[in-house]
Amino acid sequence: MKNKAITSRDEDFAKWYTDVVKAAKLADYSNVKGCVILEPNGYAIWEKMQAELDKKFKLLGHQNVYMPVLIPESLLKKEGELIAGFAPEGAWVTIGGNKPLEERMMIRPTSETLFSDYYASKVSSYRDLPLLYNQWCNVMRWEKETRPFLRTREFLWQEGHTVHETAKEAEEETLQMLNVYRHFFEDILAIPVITGKKTEKEKFAGAEYTCTVEALMYNGVSLQSATSHYFGQKFSKAYGIQFLNRENKLENAYQTSWGCTTRMIGALIMVHSDDNGLVLPPRIAPRQVVIVPIGTDEEVFTLADQYNKKLIANGISSFVDKTERSPGFKFAEHEVNGIPVRIEIGVRDLAENMITLARRDTREKIKVSKDCDIVEEVSHLMSAIQQNLFESAKKRNDEKTFNAFTLEEVEKIMNTQPGFVKAMWCGDEACELKMKEIRGTKSRCILENEPAISNKCVCCGKEAKHLVVWGIQY
Amino acid sequence: MKNKAITSRDEDFAKWYTDVVKAAKLADYSNVKGCVILEPNGYAIWEKMQAELDKKFKLLGHQNVYMPVLIPESLLKKEGELIAGFAPEGAWVTIGGNKPLEERMMIRPTSETLFSDYYASKVSSYRDLPLLYNQWCNVMRWEKETRPFLRTREFLWQEGHTVHETAKEAEEETLQMLNVYRHFFEDILAIPVITGKKTEKEKFAGAEYTCTVEALMYNGVSLQSATSHYFGQKFSKAYGIQFLNRENKLENAYQTSWGCTTRMIGALIMVHSDDNGLVLPPRIAPRQVVIVPIGTDEEVFTLADQYNKKLIANGISSFVDKTERSPGFKFAEHEVNGIPVRIEIGVRDLAENMITLARRDTREKIKVSKDCDIVEEVSHLMSAIQQNLFESAKKRNDEKTFNAFTLEEVEKIMNTQPGFVKAMWCGDEACELKMKEIRGTKSRCILENEPAISNKCVCCGKEAKHLVVWGIQY
Repeated sequence: MKNKAITSRDEDFAKWYTDVVKAAKLADYSNVKGCVILEPNGYAIWEKMQAELDKKFKLLGHQNVYMPVLIPESLLKKEGELIAGFAPEGAWVTIGGNKPLEERMMIRPTSETLFSDYYASKVSSYRDLPLLYNQWCNVMRWEKETRPFLRTREFLWQEGHTVHETAKEAEEETLQMLNVYRHFFEDILAIPVITGKKTEKEKFAGAEYTCTVEALMYNGVSLQSATSHYFGQKFSKAYGIQFLNRENKLENAYQTSWGCTTRMIGALIMVHSDDNGLVLPPRIAPRQVVIVPIGTDEEVFTLADQYNKKLIANGISSFVDKTERSPGFKFAEHEVNGIPVRIEIGVRDLAENMITLARRDTREKIKVSKDCDIVEEVSHLMSAIQQNLFESAKKRNDEKTFNAFTLEEVEKIMNTQPGFVKAMWCGDEACELKMKEIRGTKSRCILENEPAISNKCVCCGKEAKHLVVWGIQY
Repeated sequence: MKNKAITSRDEDFAKWYTDVVKAAKLADYSNVKGCVILEPNGYAIWEKMQAELDKKFKLLGHQNVYMPVLIPESLLKKEGELIAGFAPEGAWVTIGGNKPLEERMMIRPTSETLFSDYYASKVSSYRDLPLLYNQWCNVMRWEKETRPFLRTREFLWQEGHTVHETAKEAEEETLQMLNVYRHFFEDILAIPVITGKKTEKEKFAGAEYTCTVEALMYNGVSLQSATSHYFGQKFSKAYGIQFLNRENKLENAYQTSWGCTTRMIGALIMVHSDDNGLVLPPRIAPRQVVIVPIGTDEEVFTLADQYNKKLIANGISSFVDKTERSPGFKFAEHEVNGIPVRIEIGVRDLAENMITLARRDTREKIKVSKDCDIVEEVSHLMSAIQQNLFESAKKRNDEKTFNAFTLEEVEKIMNTQPGFVKAMWCGDEACELKMKEIRGTKSRCILENEPAISNKCVCCGKEAKHLVVWGIQY
């Protein structure tokens, strides 16, 4: 009973991934190289992600703004590390209104420069702080190899940018937002994650340090899924964000930024989905329930409408599929699209006063009385699905997480059953580069709250400083 | 009691406008020429506009998608009229990833080309139709003169793009969406509008015809506020959107597009606001009620919190201003920001069991019992404000709408008390060009459902075909 449009996940993971993207109508390739079209099913997931995160951001006092999409080169250059990091990936506007521009402008790859330039004009006293702004927008990075959701030249994201009076407050914000992301991944997306600091080599250009949310895909490949950066005074010095502090002295402000992208849709696919298409945790599914009437009996349609009304009235996103297609066709389509719960109402079941609930994750069918409390049944089932998806992913992560003490062990793991590898590190970039020779293995993050597993660097054998998670990455 | 940061509206309207934008913290100039920064107060209005419109779009069966921001030149050129219209305003990306591009790409000024190219690959049978898509995004047009919200190089908008099986259905969609905009303007923004078709000269490049929503500002200048276009088969022929119709014959599909922008925030300012700052109709105000405790009495704060809780529980956006600033300072700030209702709670009032409600539109203060049903009082007041703003604008529009029968009359009106001028027109573009010599007067739209006021063209005196509304425009 496999969907024929979808390659088996265990056979060819990369092909399976793009098959799911296409079959579930999440995105389509466009005639603009390296850019995809977010189709209704894909964009609806992004809208739900936005709604969930935006609510949390605002509860924590953040406000939304919108900055220009173009950044003049001179403004970009004020802070050296950022431009050095993004220049090779820049898309440059050089002509405007039929004339060559005096100064070329980059389509924003990220907006630290514009926010910092703006903050410099807005901040003059500690009374103006903190400023807690966020924007939802498109950004562009001229990637060579692209893959829908995971890496495209243009993508959608949110970028939070905050300015604070003290380093302590800014560091607390960095950590707070990392935790917002972690909860979002675990509670809403049902994706277990590891969080921690990036190494110097892997941190964001221009940051003092970068905190990251790292997830593990079905095939054992790691995905950097969201980041939260502490900038200290780097940008505030470059852009002149100064304020009179409580001692009436001029001081440079302390900044953070934090972001997540449409890449999270790629993570949803690669963590939960299967050979029958998309699987979505109920809390992020734009449509949570589909009701399929089987046959043309009036009783069937009446009950379908009754259930639908009750579910919607209780905040559950439900719809009735009344199209003139066979039930089998409908089942397959709604499965491909990842709708968590299907209610089947047929005359034969009704003769026994029963209806059928089908859950997408396990594809199990459950018969319940047609007179049940449908809202309670569905809510209960959705909780079970949400929990099962998280626990299945967690179990797989545990199975794919290994301790390694030598380079040979790392090599063996990455070559046979890649996953998260925990190993000690001396702190030397040379060792990171050596690890990279093993199928591109990179440090995911430093685990600051876990005990050391040895005192020697996995690579050079010298004294270890940090326990690090390593992985092959997307 | 005038706000000193704001120039008088009757003294210098243009300066008053930018003063209000700045004082209400709606937008700020950026170091990117021709682009502004949408600040929290301005962006929050846009978010509320998006929420209202998006809900309506979806109720009518539309789905959101996202198309690439860049359009390759060859794709743009497939339909000749559109590119001819937008080429002079294009912002071109010519370098990507440190290399000159083989083909330059324009930052989207609008996305008919990308949608049509996509639809060509998706539509093959009448069963695939209609496709009702919309996107919320940024667009860019390299304007020479810019003004916050009214005309900036980059702006935010929504663009709906639909494909239909028949011309009739597409024309109905064009009209339906025009009416969605009209209702939005009148019911939500409290802005009375005129709707109708644009003349050939003023229609959108590439459209069969364009329907428009036209509003009149406080100073008598017209603002094109939203448009809905019927494309017929123009784009479907250029981009090859063909389907097998019910007679099993290949046919080109019929299309529409419709859009509105952040310009609507400019309209809100120029229709409702005054010398004390922003005035917002309650239905579009992000924050509808502010509660200002006067003094530090516990009773005052307790009551403020009680009211606030009740209002929020009833879906009214309310907050308590507990900052340590003088009541006068707070009143002025909340007035500048256009918060429709202010509740003042002070010890002196409370001694008489009273509180004070202040409405932003008339600045009237009303004493009510502290034991009143606060939700009902505030709801009632908000309805009154909403209605008063609409009626005041309607009255002003009526006063500024004139019939004219000769060019001299048009000239006199436009030079002394500009507004909407109704006048007959022969249909000849030469006459439109002649009208333009009068302070740039342009046709706003053709009034198809109003009786002719004469049978002679206001300009050439020949036989008139249409009753047209004319105006000076932003």
